[in-house]
Amino acid sequence: MAKYSIGIDFGTLSGRALLVDVETGAELAVAVKEYPHGVMEEKLPNGERLPIDYALQHPQDYLDVLRETIPAVLKQANVSPEDVIGIGIDFTSCTVLPIYRDGTPLCFKEEFKGNRHAYVKLWKHHAAQDQANRLNRIAEERGETFLKRYGGKISSEWMVPKIMEIVEEAPEIYREMDRFIEAADWIVMMLTGKETRNSCTAGYKLMWSKREGFPSKDFFKALHPLLENFIEEKIGQEIIPLGTKAGEITPEAAKLTGLKPGTAVAVGNVDAHVTFPALGITEPGKMLMIIGTSTCDILLGKEERIVPGMCGVVEDGVVPGFFGYEAGQSCVGDHFAWFERTCVPKEYHEEAERRGVTVQDYLSEKAAQLRPGESGLLALDWWNGNRSVLVDVDLTGLLLGQTLATKPEEIYRALIEATAFGARMIMETFAENGVPVDELYAAGGIVEKNPLMMQIYADVMNREIKLAGSNQAPALGSAIFGAIAAGRRNGGYDDVFSAAKTMGKLKSESYKPIQENVRTYELLFAEYRKLHDYFGRFEHVMKRLKTIKENVKGV
Amino acid sequence: MAKYSIGIDFGTLSGRALLVDVETGAELAVAVKEYPHGVMEEKLPNGERLPIDYALQHPQDYLDVLRETIPAVLKQANVSPEDVIGIGIDFTSCTVLPIYRDGTPLCFKEEFKGNRHAYVKLWKHHAAQDQANRLNRIAEERGETFLKRYGGKISSEWMVPKIMEIVEEAPEIYREMDRFIEAADWIVMMLTGKETRNSCTAGYKLMWSKREGFPSKDFFKALHPLLENFIEEKIGQEIIPLGTKAGEITPEAAKLTGLKPGTAVAVGNVDAHVTFPALGITEPGKMLMIIGTSTCDILLGKEERIVPGMCGVVEDGVVPGFFGYEAGQSCVGDHFAWFERTCVPKEYHEEAERRGVTVQDYLSEKAAQLRPGESGLLALDWWNGNRSVLVDVDLTGLLLGQTLATKPEEIYRALIEATAFGARMIMETFAENGVPVDELYAAGGIVEKNPLMMQIYADVMNREIKLAGSNQAPALGSAIFGAIAAGRRNGGYDDVFSAAKTMGKLKSESYKPIQENVRTYELLFAEYRKLHDYFGRFEHVMKRLKTIKENVKGV
Repeated sequence: MAKYSIGIDFGTLSGRALLVDVETGAELAVAVKEYPHGVMEEKLPNGERLPIDYALQHPQDYLDVLRETIPAVLKQANVSPEDVIGIGIDFTSCTVLPIYRDGTPLCFKEEFKGNRHAYVKLWKHHAAQDQANRLNRIAEERGETFLKRYGGKISSEWMVPKIMEIVEEAPEIYREMDRFIEAADWIVMMLTGKETRNSCTAGYKLMWSKREGFPSKDFFKALHPLLENFIEEKIGQEIIPLGTKAGEITPEAAKLTGLKPGTAVAVGNVDAHVTFPALGITEPGKMLMIIGTSTCDILLGKEERIVPGMCGVVEDGVVPGFFGYEAGQSCVGDHFAWFERTCVPKEYHEEAERRGVTVQDYLSEKAAQLRPGESGLLALDWWNGNRSVLVDVDLTGLLLGQTLATKPEEIYRALIEATAFGARMIMETFAENGVPVDELYAAGGIVEKNPLMMQIYADVMNREIKLAGSNQAPALGSAIFGAIAAGRRNGGYDDVFSAAKTMGKLKSESYKPIQENVRTYELLFAEYRKLHDYFGRFEHVMKRLKTIKENVKGV
Repeated sequence: MAKYSIGIDFGTLSGRALLVDVETGAELAVAVKEYPHGVMEEKLPNGERLPIDYALQHPQDYLDVLRETIPAVLKQANVSPEDVIGIGIDFTSCTVLPIYRDGTPLCFKEEFKGNRHAYVKLWKHHAAQDQANRLNRIAEERGETFLKRYGGKISSEWMVPKIMEIVEEAPEIYREMDRFIEAADWIVMMLTGKETRNSCTAGYKLMWSKREGFPSKDFFKALHPLLENFIEEKIGQEIIPLGTKAGEITPEAAKLTGLKPGTAVAVGNVDAHVTFPALGITEPGKMLMIIGTSTCDILLGKEERIVPGMCGVVEDGVVPGFFGYEAGQSCVGDHFAWFERTCVPKEYHEEAERRGVTVQDYLSEKAAQLRPGESGLLALDWWNGNRSVLVDVDLTGLLLGQTLATKPEEIYRALIEATAFGARMIMETFAENGVPVDELYAAGGIVEKNPLMMQIYADVMNREIKLAGSNQAPALGSAIFGAIAAGRRNGGYDDVFSAAKTMGKLKSESYKPIQENVRTYELLFAEYRKLHDYFGRFEHVMKRLKTIKENVKGV
C-alpha cells in the first residue's frame, strides 16, 4: 500500500500543498491558495495607513491555506488520510509574529486589530533599517563574535531588528506577547499543539549557533533594556535540528486539515533551504542557486569557515551534520524586469507583439545570436546593491563599453552576464575560503523560462548546471522532511540522505559549458573582477554619488 | 549707399549663401542648395561600388551652389552686384580633391570618371585609417616635432593620410594631378582664377606651422617614396593668413555667379573656425563651442602652448596675430540620438505623440524636473571615443549608479551632463596648460533646440554662456572675411577686429550658472574626473574589451 507525504510551501503571496508518493517521489496533486490579505503594505484590514517600508501579513491567511489546500490534494489524488504518514512545511523567513502562550496571534484580539505591531512582519518588511544599523554598530563595538558568521552584518529583515522596532514603538505589544515566533514554527505549533524552534531560522535569522547559542543578555540589554531577557522570555533555548519530528497532528488540527490525528509533523523550515534536498542533494561541494527576482545560494561544508560576505553559516541549518552556508544576489530577475520596463525601444515591443512572443523572449532570441564578448559591454550587477560578497546596499549599477552602435539586446545580454559573473564571484569566494564547489544546481521559475541565461551561467562558471526536477521544489523538500518525521517504521525514512535520494529529483537535461565560450568568459570575468574590486572595495564613487543624491533630495 | 558682403558656407550636404549689410551686420537674404550628389558612400556616379568607410563628393555640386545661391540672394534682397564689395567662403575640412594646374578636377575628365581617387574626399572619408596609423608611427619614431601641436596624433580625416591612400592605391592619379587642394581653396581658385592656400587648413589639416613650415622631405619620403616632393609638387610653400584678400572675381566667375568682375574674394576658411568672429569675438580667453552631432571648440592664445589632447594649434589659424586652438568632443548630439533610438520605452514614445512633441523634447521636459545629483547617475561621454583630452578612439561609454528605480529621463540627463563634464575637462586642460578660458560662447543647431542642455553646460562649467546671434553663423563669418577682403577703402574693413565688432552678433539672452547647481556639479565633476583618469589613463578595461570584441568578431 502506497504511503504519502504532504509538503506545504508558504510563499510571499500564496501557500501551496503538494502530495507526494513517499516511495517513488511522484507528485500526485498540488493545490494553491492565494492569501486573502496578500501583502499589507499600505493599510491594515481596518483601513489604518501604514508607514513606508512596511510589509505585513495576516496569520489567518496561513490557516486558510491549511484548511483549503490539504483537503484539496487529498481529494484530487483520491488518497485517504490514513495513508498520509507525514507533513512538512516551509516558509519565507524571517516572517515573524507575536503570539500568546496558546498560539493565538495578538492581532486576533479585538483590542490589537488596529495595532500594526500585532501583525505578521513579512520577510521583506524593511521599516527596521535604523534598528539594524544600531544593532550592527553595537555588536561591532562590543566585538560580538556572531557577526563574523553573517558576513559582518545583520540584515534589517531578520528577527532582532524586527523585535527592536516593536519594543521601541509599541512596548505594550512587547509586554503583551508571550512569544515572538517564526511563522514556520507557528504553523507547526498550530498543527502539533506545541511550540518548537527549528535550527534553520534560529541560525540564519536569530544569530543562534549550535556551539555558541544565542547572543548574551548583556548584548540584548545594550540594544534596549526591555530586551535583556528576550531569549528566555519570548523565544526559549531549545532549538531543534532539521529532520526532527516536531510532533503529531492534534485532533483540532485534524479537523482543520482533514488529516488523521497522530500524523507526523516535521519541524519548520525555510523555502530556500528546504529546496536543497528536493534536488536529491545532501552533501558538501554542491551549490544550489535558487534564481528568481533575486538569487539565494545554498551549499554545505564539513567545517565552519568564515567566508567574506556570506549571508550566514549555520550548523544543521540545511542538512543535519553539516554546516549550511547561505549567500545571495539581491537583483537577478529584477534586473531584467527593470531593463524591459526602462530601456526597450518601441519597435522591439511592436515586433514582439507582431510575433506573439513576450518582450523578454524576443530580447533573449536576439541576445542568443550574439557571441560572448561580441558586444564589448561589461556590467556590474549591483542595481539593488550587493548582498554577497561585498554586503553593501549602497553599491549601484555600472554598464561600460557602449558605442553608438550598441543595441538593446547587447545590453540585455550584458546584464545577464553580469549576474552570472556575480554568481561566479560567490562560488570562487567560497572556494578560496575553504568551501569548495564542485557541482552546480539551479532551481526557480526563471531557470525554466530562460535557457539563454542558464547557458551563460554554465559558460561563465565553467560547470555543468543541473536543474531541479520538480516545479514545486520547496514543497517537495517539505514533503521529504514530512516523510523523515514519520520515520522508516511508518513507511518513511530515518534520515534526509536516504529520503532525498529517493524522493528528490533532477531534470534529465542539464546545461553544459561550451568551451569556446568559457575561454572568452574567462577574459571577461577577469575584467569584471577588476571592476568589482575597484568599485566595491577601493574607490567609493557609488557611495559618494548616493550621498550627493540623498543630500539633494534632503533625505 | 549701403554695401554688402556675401558669405558662402559649404556644409556636408548643402551649401548656403548669406547676404549681409556690411555696416549693420543685418542679414538680408539666405539661399540654400542641396548637393545633387550628396555624400557618395556606396557608389560612384557611374554605379561603381565603393569600399567601406568611403565618403566622396562631386565638385560640380559646389559650382552649382555658386551658380544658384548667389544670384538667388541678390534677387531676394533686391541688391545690385555693384554694391557687393566682397565674398568669403568656408568649407568642411579636410575636404580635398586632385586638380590640374588650371583648376579642373581630375574627376571631370572622361578617363577618370570611374576612378574613386579622382573625386573629392570629404572630411568624414575614413578609409585612410591604416595610413594614418602608419603616419603616426613613423612620425613618432622619427621624433617629428609637429606631432606635439596635434595632441600627439594625426587624424585619418586629414590631408596626408588621404594623399597616402591615393599614392598607394592609385599612383596614376597621384602622377596625373598637378595639385592636391582643399575644397575651400579650390572654390577660391574658381572665383579668382588663381591658387591660394589658407593658413587655417594648412595649419590644422596639413601639419604646417608659420615657424616650422611643412614637415620635411625626408619625412614624406619615409611615408612613401613618391611623396618625397609632395609639398613642392602638389601643394606649394606659400600659405596666406586668414583675413587676406585672395584675389578678385574673374569675368568667368562673374558669369557664373552674377557678381561684378573685380569683387574682392577672401582666402578660404573652415566652417568651425570662421564661426568665431561671427559671434563678434576676436580675442584670447574666449572659448567657442560649436555643438552639433559632435562639438568643435575654438579658442585663441597669445603664445603657442602644448596642451594635452588638443586637435591642433595654428598661428593665424583663426584670427591673424593669435594662436588658434582647436579641440573637440566626438559625440554630443549623436549621444542623445543613440539614446532616443536605443533606450526609450514605448510609453514615452506614445506619451510624446499624444502631446504632439518630439521624444527628445518630452525627455528634456522630464529631465528638466530633476535636480543635479538627484538621479545618482554619472556617465563618461565616450560612446564615440574621446577626441580631446585623451585622443583615444578606443575608449567607450560608461554609465554608473543605476538602481531598480532609475528612469529613462535620468539616464538622458546623465548623458547630457557627461558631455558637459567633457567640455569642462577640455576647458580646464587648456587653463592648466597656460591657455585660460574666461568666457564661453556657443553656436550650432542643438544650442537653440535644447535649453536644458545649455543650462546644464552653464552650471557644470560655472560660466555664463553667450549664444551666436545668427542662425547662419558660419556664413556670417565668411561674409565678415569678404568685407575684410574688400578693405575699408571699398566700404569694408581693414581687419577682423573691427569687422567682427560691427558685423558679428550675439543673442541678447544668455545662460547663467545657477549657484546651487554649480555646487552640486562641482562634486559630480570631481567624480567624473576620477573616472576619466582611471579609465582613460590608467586602467585599460575598455581597450581590452575592444580587443576581445575584435578577436571574437575576427576583425
